[in-house]
Amino acid sequence: MVSLAVAEAAAELSVVQVLSAASPDSFLAAPVPQLDLEFGGIRGDRHFGLTRPSGSREARCYPRGTTILNRRQVTLVSAEELAHVASRLQVPEIRAEWLGANLLVAGLPALSALPAGTRLLFPSGAGLVCTGVNQPCRQPAQVVQEHYPQSTALRQFVRAAMGRRGIAASVECPGLVRPFDRAIVVPPERHVVID
Amino acid sequence: MVSLAVAEAAAELSVVQVLSAASPDSFLAAPVPQLDLEFGGIRGDRHFGLTRPSGSREARCYPRGTTILNRRQVTLVSAEELAHVASRLQVPEIRAEWLGANLLVAGLPALSALPAGTRLLFPSGAGLVCTGVNQPCRQPAQVVQEHYPQSTALRQFVRAAMGRRGIAASVECPGLVRPFDRAIVVPPERHVVID
Repeated sequence: MVSLAVAEAAAELSVVQVLSAASPDSFLAAPVPQLDLEFGGIRGDRHFGLTRPSGSREARCYPRGTTILNRRQVTLVSAEELAHVASRLQVPEIRAEWLGANLLVAGLPALSALPAGTRLLFPSGAGLVCTGVNQPCRQPAQVVQEHYPQSTALRQFVRAAMGRRGIAASVECPGLVRPFDRAIVVPPERHVVID
Repeated sequence: MVSLAVAEAAAELSVVQVLSAASPDSFLAAPVPQLDLEFGGIRGDRHFGLTRPSGSREARCYPRGTTILNRRQVTLVSAEELAHVASRLQVPEIRAEWLGANLLVAGLPALSALPAGTRLLFPSGAGLVCTGVNQPCRQPAQVVQEHYPQSTALRQFVRAAMGRRGIAASVECPGLVRPFDRAIVVPPERHVVID
């Protein structure tokens, strides 16, 4: 087996909107002027913390309620992917607020395909590291349905959003993130075997 | 584009040896009876900490010395991969101690190929999450050379070990790790698009 190291080009994305929990116990997010990323995430957001209790997503790995490292501090969704989901559901739009997302970004064709370990570096010096895909759940389906009572979102959102639900991330380096920021997307180092 | 979710089978690995820093400022590791994983990593090890100053590995991303999340708390190397590297260097063995590794494991054909986001779950309930490949550096080359003065390790170690240098990991769930433990290897959730 022979394979050579190739420096993968870094891509870029644009921040369209930044959001935080609309209220401490709400699934919904609300736009804010900027995010002040700390090592625990976004203070005041429902996902803030260096650790968190494990839930149904980790049921294969840890008994529910186990204190684990919080690798879902920040969630990002893509304007292009949400437009695609809206089109599939035949509704005018799907808003980042309804999905409880913290960053709405644009400019990457497939945000949700970024592998874990991808870094997002912001002009302030802040850095996020992608920790994995964000699987669709049913809560946003209900919110979308409430906004479009004639739609089939409640039944079809999860399927329509599969693979386009964005990513979760941890704060690797604290700092500010603002609308109109352009962020550099750095792929993770690859496994390279030379014979 | 149509793709279906496939539950990937979890693999297993065996813990052969557990190690911690031989002395606070030494690159070398020494075998210990067990590792007591905390959220900061292995107390007393030179990589212990929730955060660390960035170094040359992150020079593309952060000015050197920036305080960043410590995603290199624990390093793992593979008995099979080290045997391959030893064979390429024509030396009898490469020991985990010499590489400053914390876990020597066996049973996975290519530990170093595990993608970031892979979980390793131990019998105690402890969990590690792979944060990426461990790129070869020159320090182990010197140590190997000292053990085999007639060898070409100093010149050839980095190339021989490329892609077989193991992985770095963060502690996702604290707990004990002991020799002879069998750990479950859970692949990261995948990006799945349904049309």
